[in-house]
Amino acid sequence: MAEAKSESKDFDEIDDLCVRSIGVLAANMVQKANSGHPGAPMGMSAIAHVLWSKIMTGNSANSAFPNRDRFVLSNGHACALQYSMLHLNGYALSMSDLQSFRQLDSKTPGHPENHLTDGVECSTGPLGQGVAQAVGMAIAAKYAQSMFGAEMFNSTIYTLCGDGCLQEGVCAEAVSLAGHLQLDNLIVLYDDNDIQIDGSTELAFTEDVPARFTAYKWNVLSVDKGNEDLQGILDAIKLAQATKDRPTLICVKTAIGFGSTKQGSHKVHGAPLGDECLAAYTEKMGLKEGGFAIDPKVYARYKETFGQRGKDAESAWNKIRQGLSAEKQTLLTRLLKGELPQNWESALPIFDETSKSTASRNMNGDVLNALAKAIPEIIGGAADLTPSTKTELKCSHDFQAKSRDGRYLRFGVREFGMFAVGNGIAAFGLNLIPFTATFLNFLGYGMGAVRLGALSQLRHIYVMTHDSVLLGEDGPTHQPVEALPACRSMPNLLTFRPCDGNEVSQTWRLMLERTDGPSVIALSRQSIDVALVSKYTKNGVAAKGVANGAYVLNGQGSEEKEETVDVCVIASGSEVELALRAAEALEGELKVRVVSANCLELFDATSLEYRKSVLPPGVLVVSIEASSTYGWAKYAHKSIGVKAFGKSAPLASIREDFGFNAPALIKNIQETVAAWKKSGQVVPLLPTLFPF
Amino acid sequence: MAEAKSESKDFDEIDDLCVRSIGVLAANMVQKANSGHPGAPMGMSAIAHVLWSKIMTGNSANSAFPNRDRFVLSNGHACALQYSMLHLNGYALSMSDLQSFRQLDSKTPGHPENHLTDGVECSTGPLGQGVAQAVGMAIAAKYAQSMFGAEMFNSTIYTLCGDGCLQEGVCAEAVSLAGHLQLDNLIVLYDDNDIQIDGSTELAFTEDVPARFTAYKWNVLSVDKGNEDLQGILDAIKLAQATKDRPTLICVKTAIGFGSTKQGSHKVHGAPLGDECLAAYTEKMGLKEGGFAIDPKVYARYKETFGQRGKDAESAWNKIRQGLSAEKQTLLTRLLKGELPQNWESALPIFDETSKSTASRNMNGDVLNALAKAIPEIIGGAADLTPSTKTELKCSHDFQAKSRDGRYLRFGVREFGMFAVGNGIAAFGLNLIPFTATFLNFLGYGMGAVRLGALSQLRHIYVMTHDSVLLGEDGPTHQPVEALPACRSMPNLLTFRPCDGNEVSQTWRLMLERTDGPSVIALSRQSIDVALVSKYTKNGVAAKGVANGAYVLNGQGSEEKEETVDVCVIASGSEVELALRAAEALEGELKVRVVSANCLELFDATSLEYRKSVLPPGVLVVSIEASSTYGWAKYAHKSIGVKAFGKSAPLASIREDFGFNAPALIKNIQETVAAWKKSGQVVPLLPTLFPF
Repeated sequence: MAEAKSESKDFDEIDDLCVRSIGVLAANMVQKANSGHPGAPMGMSAIAHVLWSKIMTGNSANSAFPNRDRFVLSNGHACALQYSMLHLNGYALSMSDLQSFRQLDSKTPGHPENHLTDGVECSTGPLGQGVAQAVGMAIAAKYAQSMFGAEMFNSTIYTLCGDGCLQEGVCAEAVSLAGHLQLDNLIVLYDDNDIQIDGSTELAFTEDVPARFTAYKWNVLSVDKGNEDLQGILDAIKLAQATKDRPTLICVKTAIGFGSTKQGSHKVHGAPLGDECLAAYTEKMGLKEGGFAIDPKVYARYKETFGQRGKDAESAWNKIRQGLSAEKQTLLTRLLKGELPQNWESALPIFDETSKSTASRNMNGDVLNALAKAIPEIIGGAADLTPSTKTELKCSHDFQAKSRDGRYLRFGVREFGMFAVGNGIAAFGLNLIPFTATFLNFLGYGMGAVRLGALSQLRHIYVMTHDSVLLGEDGPTHQPVEALPACRSMPNLLTFRPCDGNEVSQTWRLMLERTDGPSVIALSRQSIDVALVSKYTKNGVAAKGVANGAYVLNGQGSEEKEETVDVCVIASGSEVELALRAAEALEGELKVRVVSANCLELFDATSLEYRKSVLPPGVLVVSIEASSTYGWAKYAHKSIGVKAFGKSAPLASIREDFGFNAPALIKNIQETVAAWKKSGQVVPLLPTLFPF
Repeated sequence: MAEAKSESKDFDEIDDLCVRSIGVLAANMVQKANSGHPGAPMGMSAIAHVLWSKIMTGNSANSAFPNRDRFVLSNGHACALQYSMLHLNGYALSMSDLQSFRQLDSKTPGHPENHLTDGVECSTGPLGQGVAQAVGMAIAAKYAQSMFGAEMFNSTIYTLCGDGCLQEGVCAEAVSLAGHLQLDNLIVLYDDNDIQIDGSTELAFTEDVPARFTAYKWNVLSVDKGNEDLQGILDAIKLAQATKDRPTLICVKTAIGFGSTKQGSHKVHGAPLGDECLAAYTEKMGLKEGGFAIDPKVYARYKETFGQRGKDAESAWNKIRQGLSAEKQTLLTRLLKGELPQNWESALPIFDETSKSTASRNMNGDVLNALAKAIPEIIGGAADLTPSTKTELKCSHDFQAKSRDGRYLRFGVREFGMFAVGNGIAAFGLNLIPFTATFLNFLGYGMGAVRLGALSQLRHIYVMTHDSVLLGEDGPTHQPVEALPACRSMPNLLTFRPCDGNEVSQTWRLMLERTDGPSVIALSRQSIDVALVSKYTKNGVAAKGVANGAYVLNGQGSEEKEETVDVCVIASGSEVELALRAAEALEGELKVRVVSANCLELFDATSLEYRKSVLPPGVLVVSIEASSTYGWAKYAHKSIGVKAFGKSAPLASIREDFGFNAPALIKNIQETVAAWKKSGQVVPLLPTLFPF
């Protein structure tokens, strides 16, 4: 390593010590855990050192410093590297935390999780999504700059990634978008080590990566000796910083497991080095004290570089902040606190008997537009379905290379990338509120990102229209069936399916107020009789009800005496209208209680007592939702839904064929009640009312 | 259009008439349906005409002709074009079928569905997946060639796609793989019309597509006047056919809605032209008789070109087939019939008390290898997780550019692409049996393809290992929680989670015998006490039980008298071992029946009587599965599972923390039984036993 050092004007022997110390520290963490990935950290220690010592700005004493550079480790399995760097640079991560790598409830889990570890900007590990989130952060940084000026927000997003990330389609989608948007505040360093889990990248990955990124309109640079040539890495990054109108990819040639006897082998990717190999490596790196004994000179080097730079930067920034207009100062303070504007709820539209019939996607468009006008931190767009999802923002314009103040993102037909980019916008740290839109069925194109966002506790609103077979002619390739259960079964994701405009409004209230997780709002393509439904939801009924997830729409609600109800119909979204029609038609014959189940996850979270008040024990319950019935057995004795995939046909034919019209529902209710009476069976307690 | 025609040596005025007739026919279909996408068919009619009249080989009288060229419409919304071409070329699609476009139960749904329409090779519409399936077909064609020789199998896969497909990550993954594999039997024609739903492609898609594909090591050609220059299209395709060792992308510049007053506008993408515009267009195209009145010369032209070519080809092929060795003839006949080899079940390994403890992923590796040796049509691989998923095929080698007889595919870290490619292998039509492998959690990266394969009724086996939080240290980013419910709620997908090697074997039997849909097999990373579990599954118990999805493992099974059971524990996969341990430990105190729920979808399909015999009414049921409990309320009074995301920690800590060990389960069972007794409540009937 001495050769490279001697040639470099910006680095000395302490830098060399730092690089060696990082690799050995990370390898020791993996060895102590007896689990993990040492190879990539060992191969990327030089890159990491250059970034922290010479390049990045951040304050370990205040990891939320708004104008910090962002560091994203897209190849999250290399997190022993990230944790090592955070520790060495003074973040709230002790040596003992490092030694608890991959242990229960430690701050150092097997892949980085933003909500667990100080200084981790976003969760990574599922490959490709770090890069995609970095694209979102770069968008957020540009938008922030448009709000507060280039002196206030000018950070760069530095991202490390490996071969795996570059093979993932989510990454391809995001980097194509980044090139289109000319995000010159994004620098990706590619750990080009020729090795993946199966062996050589020659097995599966022989494309010309630099040429591909050039085609995406990226600036592409390379460093030949990425394990040793600190100066080369530094020079490349500086060149990238100086490049305008393009993001930069720096292809850094490295050896996985650099310096060990297993260097260059896939065997060093996902398993500890082993005692012998580690000892030899430690010795070769000149660190006889062992991996966890860090030379004070290493800490000192980072303190005087990254540490000092960050402090200076934050002081300077605070001074600049004083110069902002009062209005901007108020806005910035509010955003940093994560508070919504005062009285923002007054923007929520109200619907009643005078409202015209329309699809809930249209009502959602109205609500979204009303809120976007009042809440400047709402930013989002659609995957090339703007006219269909009704998400155009009339109060703003497109976010493009020439219009960074635009709040509407044209994502292109890139669902997975869009969702991950949305997560990145949320993860940026200014409490921006991303929304992303497509057909509910195409949520399945990007569930990997929906999941990572839920795990990362990021507020992100998924506007999902065309939410059932009732979308009609486009047919089963576009008709969601299993999407709602897939969402409802995901931890920390709330799934809403509002029945009318009032529920749409109130759903947005809940989604915006929820700061620790994402929400899906499922909306109809077909028209809903808003006047009919809003008669029941108006006057604060929905406003009160939606927080409980499911609530009684007709009758006296929870105060109603149980024995007067013959049957409950629990429905969601556009099928609530059918339930209300059935209840009205059956009046006199059967007392039908209608329950709107806008969000079953919230209903699950209510008290047993509340759930009993909505679905009284002893009363037969029928559910109706134009979706898979999977999961509904918990809430209903009979579930009306879609048993297989949908069909391509006009709406009226679909309604008839699948039984989603009022006459079919009425008949179904009558027959179900009659059949149960005839069976002589006691109405069994529903699982949602079980005492466990 | 006359100019282009006059210059071309291979086309005459009837060809011109054909092109005009196609566009008008497709536009009329959309108009009659009052729904659909006229613009792309109008813009691609020249391409389609060249393909059918001059290029492709197929037999409309026998659309299953094994050596036919395959046509894939990746931009499936343009299916009015595909249906028109199939009709004009004599496939089982009448004019009346065309006039029933997008009507209930017609053969002409809104997007192409392979199982509904003669001549449709694969379902498309969800963008990008047509191209990816085409890559799979190209792999299948090369493998078929390696089996039977280049005279028997030498077809080309022709694929049309639009801007949307090229923006999708699934497409990027698949085409990178196709370039790596040098699939020169794949030709993609890109309908480069500058328009997507939001408007101009300038809004979101400004990358250099030809350069990107060149980087993927594709041959890239272009045609400037794709609406008129039939000769140019033909010449480009011929050049592509002549190109070896590379797939070809032909960028064909077209105008969407060509020839109409709405030409070049996104308004012609997804809505009918309208009567006035259609009338003007029809007149301009010189077709005064109207769109559905096809000039007999058009039919004649296709009969003398595509029709004659296909008949000749099939005759020639049948003669060549005679020359195959007896062994090859038998194999080919068997494959075309879709039958498995005789006595293939004898290859299934059997496990008993002498079996060593090991993870079910390892047992699956053994079963897969035993079967692959006996069944040459099994072909598959992993998304760069071969050492982890244990899917290496010891009886074969890699499928690569230089080894087309290899049956192991190195997919790279490209899950979505892998799943879609697997679908394409299944859709190729030779009854090849694809398997694809990754961690269960990363099924979420490609659910869009899993769904399309289920809808398409394709046999495809998803080998999904690391199937729960019990994978340990890799943590929540890798630990599936909602994956099982997401699979179980999907129509026509079977989800298996075998408890030991005998169930793994029997699961493969079911998955292979199932020819009309895909299956997921979920497998553990952690070790299972095979000797313990196999004591209960051996001697044909699993063989008999698995077909019913869930069955009694201990006691006398269904003959056992109900009153002797105190509590049932229904478990899946690795948790069955815990249930058996608990039952053994509680013997004397509580009579615990253990039910192995290997496949709840199959259990749902059994008779109510059978389900009652497994879960007797009046008996308390506890479920345990190291996954979300979503959906389990149907089968159990109490569900033990994972409530949120997982955690990164060693296995023992995870077991302790989440309660997945025998002592915790025993305690839980005891407490549940005691609590229920104390409550004095009748044990309610479970939803799975409801009479509806």
